Amino acid sequence: MVSDSDSHVPSADNTGPLHDGSLLAAIDLGSNSFHLIVARVEHGEIRPVEALAEKVQLGAGLQDHLLSQDAIDRGLECLARFGQLLGSVAPERIRIVATHTLRVARNRRDFTRPARELLGTPVDVIYGREEARLVYLGVAHTLADDVKSRLVIDIGGGSTELIVGERFEPRELESLQMGCVSYSQEFFDGENISPERYRAACNRARLELSHIRQRYHSGHWVECVGSSGTLQAIEGILQAYGWSSGGIDNEGLAKLEQKLLRFKRFSSIKLSGLSPQRRNVILAGVAITRALFDVLGIRQMRTSKGALREGVIYDLLGRLSHEDVRERSINALMQRYNVDTAAAAIVEKRARMLFDATRKTWELKKADWDLLHRASCTLDVGMAISHKHYNRHSAYLLQNTDLAGFSQEEQEQLALLVRSHRGKLDPSLWAELSESEVPRLLRLIALLRLAYLFKHVEQLEQLPEFNLRAGKRSLKLSCPEGWLEQHPLTAWELEQECATLGKLELKLSVQ
Amino acid sequence: MVSDSDSHVPSADNTGPLHDGSLLAAIDLGSNSFHLIVARVEHGEIRPVEALAEKVQLGAGLQDHLLSQDAIDRGLECLARFGQLLGSVAPERIRIVATHTLRVARNRRDFTRPARELLGTPVDVIYGREEARLVYLGVAHTLADDVKSRLVIDIGGGSTELIVGERFEPRELESLQMGCVSYSQEFFDGENISPERYRAACNRARLELSHIRQRYHSGHWVECVGSSGTLQAIEGILQAYGWSSGGIDNEGLAKLEQKLLRFKRFSSIKLSGLSPQRRNVILAGVAITRALFDVLGIRQMRTSKGALREGVIYDLLGRLSHEDVRERSINALMQRYNVDTAAAAIVEKRARMLFDATRKTWELKKADWDLLHRASCTLDVGMAISHKHYNRHSAYLLQNTDLAGFSQEEQEQLALLVRSHRGKLDPSLWAELSESEVPRLLRLIALLRLAYLFKHVEQLEQLPEFNLRAGKRSLKLSCPEGWLEQHPLTAWELEQECATLGKLELKLSVQ
Repeated sequence: MVSDSDSHVPSADNTGPLHDGSLLAAIDLGSNSFHLIVARVEHGEIRPVEALAEKVQLGAGLQDHLLSQDAIDRGLECLARFGQLLGSVAPERIRIVATHTLRVARNRRDFTRPARELLGTPVDVIYGREEARLVYLGVAHTLADDVKSRLVIDIGGGSTELIVGERFEPRELESLQMGCVSYSQEFFDGENISPERYRAACNRARLELSHIRQRYHSGHWVECVGSSGTLQAIEGILQAYGWSSGGIDNEGLAKLEQKLLRFKRFSSIKLSGLSPQRRNVILAGVAITRALFDVLGIRQMRTSKGALREGVIYDLLGRLSHEDVRERSINALMQRYNVDTAAAAIVEKRARMLFDATRKTWELKKADWDLLHRASCTLDVGMAISHKHYNRHSAYLLQNTDLAGFSQEEQEQLALLVRSHRGKLDPSLWAELSESEVPRLLRLIALLRLAYLFKHVEQLEQLPEFNLRAGKRSLKLSCPEGWLEQHPLTAWELEQECATLGKLELKLSVQ
Repeated sequence: MVSDSDSHVPSADNTGPLHDGSLLAAIDLGSNSFHLIVARVEHGEIRPVEALAEKVQLGAGLQDHLLSQDAIDRGLECLARFGQLLGSVAPERIRIVATHTLRVARNRRDFTRPARELLGTPVDVIYGREEARLVYLGVAHTLADDVKSRLVIDIGGGSTELIVGERFEPRELESLQMGCVSYSQEFFDGENISPERYRAACNRARLELSHIRQRYHSGHWVECVGSSGTLQAIEGILQAYGWSSGGIDNEGLAKLEQKLLRFKRFSSIKLSGLSPQRRNVILAGVAITRALFDVLGIRQMRTSKGALREGVIYDLLGRLSHEDVRERSINALMQRYNVDTAAAAIVEKRARMLFDATRKTWELKKADWDLLHRASCTLDVGMAISHKHYNRHSAYLLQNTDLAGFSQEEQEQLALLVRSHRGKLDPSLWAELSESEVPRLLRLIALLRLAYLFKHVEQLEQLPEFNLRAGKRSLKLSCPEGWLEQHPLTAWELEQECATLGKLELKLSVQ
């Protein structure tokens, strides 16, 4: 459903098509580390040119779903340093994604707002399964393109992603709330090492994994690949002690457990191949790894340097080359809920006309059209649940469904538009959204409502030749002479709409 | 998915199978009238033996979603009179359904609780589409069993139901919030008749209908059948004036409009064939009928005496003869959301075992098993939306989906069970439910949680031979010797569960 007319949107915010030598950048705001990667496009492939990592341990600043000011400052200072490397990359070719810690922090905007100001690019907080999808994409690009099915595991600071897939296609995606930083906080006091607490951590991880065992155990894949700093650190230690010539296996892991549990305190851990910064979280990481091996029947794991940030870069390359996975997600949703594509196309066509007429005055951008287009296509998905209040059901589905490629905020915005495409407008719906986004969203809601209003009443007829003119806070709609008189219902609905939009301080006049 | 073991449930609350001569009864608490019908089963068919109707005008007592005490009293007095006719009907063979007014009244329990006490049978508040389904069922049984597709329309006091179907199968079901009582209140002042207000009522009805025109216009059906007092009254007037020899057509309707609008006041309306009680609502009913004819392209409508109450009787006959449409709805839901039926069967089997073990002490009935069985089958429907918090998504779907055969309360209870089958228990979830139902629901939740807990951890193994004993407020679970030691995870989950159920004042002990 990518509209052909897509290309008509002026790319004032775009520096033109990608070509060889173009730079892309991705920043991954993990719970343990922040990572930056800058890469160059070469023959449609990606070649890293810069990479930075800092152990910000953002997750350690999280308590009762609130991020401490100290952690926020640590994170922003790191981003300021990263910023120095981003000068040569166009803002729309940078993507910043945030995972577990910012997913659960209720005050996440205290971080994401200044971060956006600092780097000129919004922070996309992504859902766990989207994180898993991107991890897989990053890892798959580092491996031979054979057809072996694989289990990919990424143990992060706050969550662990598990993916079963083949080549570049994930088949199962999961994100579990267990990570080396969060487990360190939950099971250890930061000072003493206790075998009992270690066993408790293992058991909890086993329990989490028991919920997904059926879909992830070794009967479902041929090889197991670990990504993430924790698994690379474990591999590094095993190699340093000669317990492995590459990869991680059960015996090596058992030796590492024994060795670690002989230390009495975290501060006294000394292991060849382990960086001092990882000392506090390695034991929790080993506990999670132990549970993974036991519950899923892993005997041997290799590691890959590919990770979330590489996945983000490849995904960005797709978006900029018109292979946007988000379009696939929208199409899949439309299919699953039997959306009438012909009716959706009518709404989209009218939305396009209204968008074109207001684009200039309202300074609408390609991202705005993307949102409007996706909302036009998915208005009706909730009909599959019930006709009554279907717009609420559509919004519920758009907000909660795992939609590959979307950030949380994108899904929230899409849900808001769809929820508001008809009926009363409820300001509490956008009370939670980032303030700076609200005026733009209300304008898109107004366009969507008008597009829907005409589709609705005039479904069986040709759309008349309107003239629509936008002012800063006004919309003037002129219909052909006599048309309103011949269509008293539409005239009546437009009158109602003037009142409704008036509440948004948008003056609609019709003549 | 009706369990075979269903028949093992003792029918202490059932007077045995239906046989010729058995009596069934249905009461329909409409916004305009209350109806009672008592019918006898003869050769699997239904023969009415008693019928009562009273114009309670419950809907006229509705303001700001609150039902006045006066209206409540009117309704209960009517039910007391109805009650005299119900002495010879077993309580489980009576069904009482309520529609628009009680659907929207927030204080509906102030009516339904005393009504239940009065008649010994709960009041099922049903959704609009369920009302439409039952209307169709009632009408279809009065018509020749030919294969003509038909549009059935029922203009009620608070809502209008529209159904397109063939024989006994509805194809499209809709319930619109427009009725002769509610439109009378909204568009007329109860005293004066004004052509402008009449046109406004017509226009509003046209607008409501424009939303569904595409699926209901005359291209979709061969004949149109009207049910309900309003349409029968209109037909009666047309016949009395010689404007029709049966049925309603455009010309007759136009004459009636002209005639009605010549009166200046409602109190002065005098028409042959119109009962005085209908004088105040006939104009709104004609306005809705006019809009129906115009928007849907109806030229000729016949009427049928079959209505909601007859539909309820036929539906009840099905339930009592093991053709419960609710089972079909559950199966359809499982299919739509790709529920793993084998996994569902495991949970159901374990739920059954736990149910049997506690049935006697907890005085559980067949309706309790029905609920537990349906919850076992639909735990996972929300997985289709997202794995994360899938139990919330399952509950959302069960609460909001149009499920043929279910009352609102049944859907709410099913949603509560499914929502609570794992994770923390949130008392706010049952705060809104009828107090007398809560203890029973919490017991069913406890059984479902235990059934799920074992399924979960032991999916791949045989279930051990438990012994479960229930006290009033306790459950004692004995596992085979050594089993808990061999299954430390289950032991750990059971320990957690003791704490969780403890909060419901249910003491779970495990040994």
